[in-house]
Amino acid sequence: MRILLIHADYLKYNVRDKTSIAEDIPEKMMEGSFKESLVVFTAIEKEDETNPEAVIKNAIKEIKEVFNKVKAEKIVIYPYAHLSSSLSSPEMAKKILKSMETALENEGFNVSRVPFGWYKAFKISCKGHPLSELSRTIKAEPKREKIAKEEIESK
Amino acid sequence: MRILLIHADYLKYNVRDKTSIAEDIPEKMMEGSFKESLVVFTAIEKEDETNPEAVIKNAIKEIKEVFNKVKAEKIVIYPYAHLSSSLSSPEMAKKILKSMETALENEGFNVSRVPFGWYKAFKISCKGHPLSELSRTIKAEPKREKIAKEEIESK
Ligand SMILES: [Mg+2]
Repeated sequence: MRILLIHADYLKYNVRDKTSIAEDIPEKMMEGSFKESLVVFTAIEKEDETNPEAVIKNAIKEIKEVFNKVKAEKIVIYPYAHLSSSLSSPEMAKKILKSMETALENEGFNVSRVPFGWYKAFKISCKGHPLSELSRTIKAEPKREKIAKEEIESK
Repeated sequence: MRILLIHADYLKYNVRDKTSIAEDIPEKMMEGSFKESLVVFTAIEKEDETNPEAVIKNAIKEIKEVFNKVKAEKIVIYPYAHLSSSLSSPEMAKKILKSMETALENEGFNVSRVPFGWYKAFKISCKGHPLSELSRTIKAEPKREKIAKEEIESK
């Protein structure tokens, strides 16, 4: 799993066209508007299919750590295939994204999830402080690869 | 090289803190505001160091193709390390990003480049039509890998 965490003043989206792998969504998921959020752009990868529970657990840990540091008010999970060139099946991606949402809700976080498989218009405002843009590679193994200093800095 | 192309109603940014690898920039690059743009988020990768000229040439070709399809008015090159976990040296990245800017300018495009190595606040509005968000892996070889259908659709 690859995640890109953006501490945002706001994120707004609305769905446009469906793709062939779009999830069915209720009316209320057709658009969303969130303030003071940690937006978690997320790509589920092929290798996550082997042990999804462990990957989800490690992702949740990482998200909570950043959330607490930046003092965001809510978490928005945003499916984002462009972060990886080795994607899982769409079915597995939907399953893992929903499990992440549920796991974070169960821990008491205010969480929203943006629909999978739809073309979407979106607006985002990234705050720009040093922790407002971070990326992570999440593995099933308990000790994730530490992010290279270069990767944080050279943007 | 990994690129993420966003057809945007607008992109606005302003630099915040410097990182240790920040490029020196003139006052006018401290902030920017662009309308109707193709924003090219770009990560320069380790393997691009072997044959940068070929990678630049192939990137330019790809950018022009998308630019003409979406009918944007200008191109904004935005350094974005988060798109890869195998980055080039910062020096090589700066060199390649500047060369991309110059090459596109020489072909008559209206191009701007966002500074490398600075923390930045930014706002972007992605249009949401099917071609408004595309990613590509650019190689030195003349025939780039065709993007998987899945990669375009499962976002
Ligand atoms: Mg919810």
